[in-house]
Order: sequence, then C-alpha cells, then structure tokens
Amino acid sequence: MRRAYISGFTGSAGTAVITKDKAALWTDGRYFLQAEKQLSPSWILMRAGNLGIPTPCEWLNDVLAPGCRVGIDPFLFSSDAAAELKEAIAKKNHELVSLYNLNLVDEIWKGTRPRPPNKPIRVHNLKYAGLDAASKLSFLRAEIVGAGASAIIISMLDEVAWLLNLRGSDVPHSPEGANLWLDTSSVNAAIVNTYKSACEKYFRGNGNKKSKKSKMRPSDGSTSQSKVPTGVYRMSPISLAKAVKNDAELDGMRNSHLRDAAALAQFWVWLENEIMNGTKLTEVEVADKLHEFRSKQAGFIDTSFDTISGSGANGAIIHYRAEPGNCSVVDAEKLFLLDSGAQYIDGTTDITRTVHFGEPTPRQKECFTRVLQGHIALDQAVFPENTPGFVLDPFARSSLWKIGLDYRHGTGHGVGAALNVHEGPQSISYRYGNLTSLQKGMIVSNEPGYYEDHAFGIRIENLLCVVEAETPNNFGGLVYLGFEKLTFVPIQVSSLLDGSARQWLWDNTRPVQKQ
Amino acid sequence: MRRAYISGFTGSAGTAVITKDKAALWTDGRYFLQAEKQLSPSWILMRAGNLGIPTPCEWLNDVLAPGCRVGIDPFLFSSDAAAELKEAIAKKNHELVSLYNLNLVDEIWKGTRPRPPNKPIRVHNLKYAGLDAASKLSFLRAEIVGAGASAIIISMLDEVAWLLNLRGSDVPHSPEGANLWLDTSSVNAAIVNTYKSACEKYFRGNGNKKSKKSKMRPSDGSTSQSKVPTGVYRMSPISLAKAVKNDAELDGMRNSHLRDAAALAQFWVWLENEIMNGTKLTEVEVADKLHEFRSKQAGFIDTSFDTISGSGANGAIIHYRAEPGNCSVVDAEKLFLLDSGAQYIDGTTDITRTVHFGEPTPRQKECFTRVLQGHIALDQAVFPENTPGFVLDPFARSSLWKIGLDYRHGTGHGVGAALNVHEGPQSISYRYGNLTSLQKGMIVSNEPGYYEDHAFGIRIENLLCVVEAETPNNFGGLVYLGFEKLTFVPIQVSSLLDGSARQWLWDNTRPVQKQ
Repeated sequence: MRRAYISGFTGSAGTAVITKDKAALWTDGRYFLQAEKQLSPSWILMRAGNLGIPTPCEWLNDVLAPGCRVGIDPFLFSSDAAAELKEAIAKKNHELVSLYNLNLVDEIWKGTRPRPPNKPIRVHNLKYAGLDAASKLSFLRAEIVGAGASAIIISMLDEVAWLLNLRGSDVPHSPEGANLWLDTSSVNAAIVNTYKSACEKYFRGNGNKKSKKSKMRPSDGSTSQSKVPTGVYRMSPISLAKAVKNDAELDGMRNSHLRDAAALAQFWVWLENEIMNGTKLTEVEVADKLHEFRSKQAGFIDTSFDTISGSGANGAIIHYRAEPGNCSVVDAEKLFLLDSGAQYIDGTTDITRTVHFGEPTPRQKECFTRVLQGHIALDQAVFPENTPGFVLDPFARSSLWKIGLDYRHGTGHGVGAALNVHEGPQSISYRYGNLTSLQKGMIVSNEPGYYEDHAFGIRIENLLCVVEAETPNNFGGLVYLGFEKLTFVPIQVSSLLDGSARQWLWDNTRPVQKQ
Repeated sequence: MRRAYISGFTGSAGTAVITKDKAALWTDGRYFLQAEKQLSPSWILMRAGNLGIPTPCEWLNDVLAPGCRVGIDPFLFSSDAAAELKEAIAKKNHELVSLYNLNLVDEIWKGTRPRPPNKPIRVHNLKYAGLDAASKLSFLRAEIVGAGASAIIISMLDEVAWLLNLRGSDVPHSPEGANLWLDTSSVNAAIVNTYKSACEKYFRGNGNKKSKKSKMRPSDGSTSQSKVPTGVYRMSPISLAKAVKNDAELDGMRNSHLRDAAALAQFWVWLENEIMNGTKLTEVEVADKLHEFRSKQAGFIDTSFDTISGSGANGAIIHYRAEPGNCSVVDAEKLFLLDSGAQYIDGTTDITRTVHFGEPTPRQKECFTRVLQGHIALDQAVFPENTPGFVLDPFARSSLWKIGLDYRHGTGHGVGAALNVHEGPQSISYRYGNLTSLQKGMIVSNEPGYYEDHAFGIRIENLLCVVEAETPNNFGGLVYLGFEKLTFVPIQVSSLLDGSARQWLWDNTRPVQKQ
C-alpha cells in the first residue's frame, strides 16, 4: 500500500526505488500496461525481464555516486532479500541502512494513512481443515526437535492461519527461543538481525567457555550439545505441509468448485442472453452480477481476489481492475476475459474464461486455439514423481512458440484450501530456480494466455489437483502423476479456428482418477 | 582406463571407490546392465540416481570410521570436484589427501600398463575450420584482457584442438602467468593448487606492501592494479566459442552428413537383403560392414565412437559394445539397435536407427511409436532465444510418460565440428543445473529411447543444428529458434503401431531454414 501511495501504481508486485532526484518502479510483464497508465511522468517504468533493463541493484550502482547510503524498512524485506541487496550495492561501496524506527513513506503519508486492516478472526471448521490445530502443533514440534531447534518463527500469515485453523485476519505472534528456526526467505530482516545480535551478546557473555569445552570432545559428527543459541536456517516445515492437502481439504475444494461452477453457469447464461438482447453492461456491472450469483451459493464468504473483467484491449492488461465510472462496456464484438474466484467455507476457487459473442477475427481464433492447445497439453500431462513444476511449463507454451508468441507470466501457481488463492512452494513457471517437485494432493492453476497489447487478451484457467496417474507401467519403480480437474465450467469454443458461434465445450470425458 | 583395469567395468562414466575391505563402483542408468555383467561379486554396484543410493561421499562417510584419510590423484580431479569431495568428507572429519607423486592403481598395474596414446597430430584445414588459429588466439587474448587476467589455462583437449586448428592426438601445453584464468570445473586440482601455492608464496615474499598501498586509494570498484598475482576463476571462453559453429564448420557438418547418409543407405539395403536371404550375421560383422561402406566415402577418417550394435536384449544395454566371438547374431525376429558415427575431414556424425526385419510385438510397436513421437516433438520444437536446453527435454519424454515409461539418459548432447562427438556446454537433459541456452549454430543430438531390461532397446537419433525459425510473430522482440536436421537417413517405420513390414520413412518434408 505504501508503494501504491508513493507511486500511484496499484499492481500486486513491484519495487519502488527513490533517490534524491530520480524515482523508478520495477514490475513484471503482467503489469507493464497498467503501470504505463498509472505512473506519472516523473517515474521511470522498469519493465523487468526485458532485454537491457537493469535490476534495482544495477540501477542504484549506476546512478548513485560511489559510497552512498541506501535505506530500507527491515520489517518489509525478507532477511535473504536484504542480504542480497547489501552484497550487490557493496560493489560500489554503498551502505545498506536499516531504518528500524521509522518508515520514510509513512513520514509523508502521516494522518491520511488508513489504519491497518483489523477484522475479526474465525475458526476454520475441523471438517474442512481435516486436522486439528493441536495435531498440527505436534507435527511442527516434532519437526523442530528433528532440526535441532528449540523454537521456530512462523511469519507467513497463511502459514499461521493453516497451523492454528484460523481464518480472516492477521494474527500477532511473539516467539522466543534458544536455537531458533528461521526461514530467511520469508522472515523479515529485522527479526533475523535482532536474533543474531542476541546470539552474539549471549556468546560474548557466557557462551565462550562451554563452546571451547565442547570442541575438546572427540567429534562424532553429531549436533553439538553446547548451550550457545544457534540459528537453524532452513525452509519452514509449514510451507509443504500446507501445500499438500489432506482428504478433508480436497473434498472441500471439490465441493466448493461444484457450487462455484453452478454459479458461473447461471452467470454465463444470463450474460449471453443479456448481450444477445442488446443490453449494455459495463465490466463492473458484469463482475457485480457474477458476485451476486456466487453469493447465493452455500458457504460463500468473499471473492478470492479482485475480479479481472476486461473487454477488448482491457483484456490485455493481465491484472486489469475495472473501476466504476471509468470502465468499458462488455462489447459483443470483442473478446471478453473474466478471471475471478471465491472463498467458500470449504475451499477456494480461481477460474478464467475468455468468450466472444460475435465473430472473432482470424487472428483471435488462431491465438485462442493455441492457448487452448497449451491448456489441454498441461491438463493431460503425465510425469514421474520428483518432477519440478517448471518441467511442465513448456507444454503450455509450445503451441504459441511455434508461431513466435508467448506470455509473460507463469502457467500455474499453488492454491490454498480455503486460504490464499496464491500459495507456494510449488509453481509451474519458467522460474527454473524453484525445484519444488509436484506432489500428490497439491493444487495448481493451469492458465496459459496470450495478450496483444492495446488489442485483446486471452486466458483459459482451471484449477487442478495433482493425483496418481493410472499408468500401465511404472518405469524406475516410480509413481507417475497427473491432474484431476477441479473446475467444471464449460469453455466457449466459438473462438476456435473451427468453432461455430457461441458453442461451449463441456469436457467431462476424463475418467475419475484413483485417489 | 585405470578404472576399467581395477574394476573390470569399461563404461565411459563411473567412479570407483576402494577402502581397505570394500570396493564400490558408481555409474549412471546408461550402464547399469553393462556394469552388472562386468563387475566381479567383490564389487558393490551403485546405481546412481536410483532412490536410496548414496553418493560416493555419503557412502564414505557411512562406511569409514571418523577421521580417515581419503586419497585422490589430483591430476584426474577437476579443482571443483576435489573441493566438493573435501568439504563433504570433512563432515566426518575425514581428510582429503592429494597424491602428487604416485597413482595407486599404477602401483599395481606397473609393467603391464599400456603406454599412453601418442599418435601424430594433423592440421585441421582452414576451409573446414572457417577461422585460422591466429584469429582464434586474438579472440582469446581479447577475452583474457577483458577478464583482467594475464594468461589462461586451457586444459580441455578439445578446446586446445579447436583453438589451434589441430586434430588427432593429445597436445602438451605449459602456460605461465600472473593473473591466471582458470576454469576450475575442468582444470585439474593439481594445477589449481600449484598456482594457488605460488600466489601465496609471492604474496608472503613481496606482495604485502603493494597490496596495502592499493587499499589506501579510494575504491572505484574497478579491478585492482596491484601486482600480486590473482586467479581469475570463471568458465573458459573457448567452450562457447567452439560450440557455436561458423559457416565453414556448418557447411562441413552438412556435407559430411550427406556422405554419411549415402553410406548408411547402402548399408541398410545390404543388411535387409542379407537378412531376408537368411544370412547369419553377428553384431560385430554388421558393424564392420558399416565401417566398410563409410570408409569408401570421401574424407572418412575414423568412427567417432565405438559402434553400438545390439540385437534383442543387447539393445537394452545403452552403451553396449559387441565383442568378436562373444556377441549375438542379428536376429530377424528381434529389434536391432545400431548407434554409430564417423569422423570426416569436414565434420562429425552420430546416428541411431532401430529396425525389425519381421513382425514386432504389440509392446515393441507401442514403445517404438512413443519414442518416435518424442523424437518428432523435439525435432519440430520452436522456442524463444535464451531457452536452456533442459526446457525442451520433456517434449521428447511426454509420450512415454503417458504410459509410465521413461529413459535413463539425456535427450541430446552437443557435438563438435570434426571434433569430439560429445561436447559442451549445451545439452538437452533433465540435468536442470545446466542453464546454457541453445544458440544459433550449436549442434545437438536428438535421441530419445526406451530400454526394456533383458528384452529390447529402442533409440532414434538424428543430429540437429539450431537455426532461426521463420515465425510470423516475434513476441517480446525475441528471435525464435528451431532445428535444421543434419541427418538424412530414413527411419524404418515397420515398428510403428500402424506400420507395414519393412517400410522406411524418408522425411524431407521440412522446408530449408533461413540461415
């Protein structure tokens, strides 16, 4: 929110860097068009990932005179990110300054800054969670002992929510400990630095002798028994436990998707009739109507993210948000992209459909056909266990690549069970560094797309659950995995190269997978 | 050769580890069957990559009492590999001992050890090399200056051969220097350690003062001008320069492949006739006849590797070598796998065909069909520049994965121009650590396979050249790349699910690519 306040850019991902006479904002391919619209001319837009665009560190090293001081709010940087920044700018003798006592944006924002959200929390029912908080805590405590730690910092809000079976708001947490387990990829630099300082103080105070003593014993390679506090720096054990859904969570995801599909079927019939009857509806009115249909479903709580309702060129803004009074009419002669989702008491949905109520251009048909080919290729993929998600990403792009097209976002993200609509650690993306393998019980989205700037956007998205595939062989003694579709909403195929007007494809041909 | 002498295992890749009472040999999936045959029962075969198999370091840490000494020949370990081993075994307090003055296997081998190869070298003609050695040296010297080094160690034999336009034998080299450029992934530990010791001696002798002096100057981030010798540790610049072929090299590759194809066409017609006439031919006799056809072609020098000629179950031994007097007859009722290649004066070939002269089983047809589907999927792939080879690897496996099958080797390796038949740095493999992107002018093999132990083996291999693809779009302003086939030998399709007996597929439907 501070980045949006200071720059005007409201996208979900970006980095703002401000020097005495320059201001630059980095964002990724999903937001290039939105940032062009929102940033004032005094900001430099850095299209991250494009050829020749420097990273924030490279840019700082380029524009600052050597030996400057670069400030950050250490409560907003993960420990790893702060360490990386510090090392990169040290090349030009810049110093990283952690501002523990004030935030520079807040100094400007002051009284007009909205209060932080403070909604009541609620208990997530055991019949949807599948495992009570006490059992989850027991699992976590066993992990802590196994890691040789005495406590762990859980700072990711969705990990806290999963662990305690709570939903709905931020949860304060105040851990303490000797051998503290810290996931430095997510725990902020302020916490990690405070802990490291405390360890050093303790060591200088009374840990010295004991440490030397322990070195006198013959080493057996086991963990030292010394009482000097030591950090245990590794990935949080909650992350994977949360990502692999249990049977109750999977049942909830399946059931909520069926109710969501019913609402969407009612919605699409309504919209098609309205548009055929000549009714003029704006992108916001359409999104509101979808919300109305969804809210009649049992267990509906909220949308799972701001609906992306984009007609024509707006569909090319990957994370477009239509604003009342400033948005387009859903044009029967243009492609209409609708990406939406809901939070139900038992599960989380996320779905995108792209439709046309008239005759798409040959260009649009070719692009739509190739996006759907990629979607189907991933949907039907079978792969050995231990396969990282990025291995499957090219299946979704291959048809587009053949004619020199691509899309600037990953193909799939993890999805929480009645929790965050985006969650890790798995993904299906060209970010090859994420070696997390896809595992039975994980949920991922399948959402290839194609976006022609200032013209049209196409995206087709279902949620999938990783399941064991029933293969006639199991080479290498491995289990082979595939996907079970969770999303049961027809795909309009009138935009296919050989489609007829207003045809909808209802794919229920896939046999139910063995669980 | 020392590993083969001490263990009996003659495969091209493996690690032998010998303790006072145990001996273990690690090799990869290509060699499991061969190692089972060749190792005596006193050796433990470690099938690297299989679930639960320890690495050599893990095994040493497991079987040795803490605090042992582990010896290596530092002339045979790259510097990186020695450092990794040292660190891994230090966990159990083992010490790595570099034996500079003797090799323990040679101590046993003594007089019966063959002399090292010592064949004459020859100059590789400029019309095939495309660039003279002086120009290559100028390029290399510019790289050395750019890296802030004063000399470079080139220890890879094929890099030496490429750089000096020499072919045919080992070349001695004795560099010296101040700021020495060392690619520690290939330069051996003995050279790197010797250089580091020399730097330390120099520093202690007279480098100290100058070094302090240079620290007094205000830092500008540029390379220090100190005269203390400093190592420059990064990838050799020869590796990529050699991998991206120039026009003369590509012409040589194309021309030599056409002559090779002519020899292979003559060979396959001969073999088909002989077998149809009931002649009994052994795997070795068949390989010898192929050699005879090839040796009649202009510019033929030698085979590019030991021919793999495997009938029936022998085809499942991925790097099988038929031995006279101890090999099978090529059976008309079994699949026959033939992987061979040649060195010509102007290029290097590598090709595998799998054929059947009778009626394959339904199982064989299904596997052959899926291997060919994978081969075609990779052959036809189009992809944006900056794509690492591993991104394309799943295309070749996808059809096999659908029925729970796979193969335990990479899909493609780099190939030298009238040089090594296996060369880096690019590859198309599930080894995701190799981020080298495929570039226009690189040569790779396309060789998916399937191997049913003790039954049959299938592999279909062509060589491909990376070329610009003529796509109607260039999303992101990128060049899209594809492949030009170099191999022009028909593929027998009688093993396809819908193939007829002894049909051959001659694929020349692909338009010639723009260069």
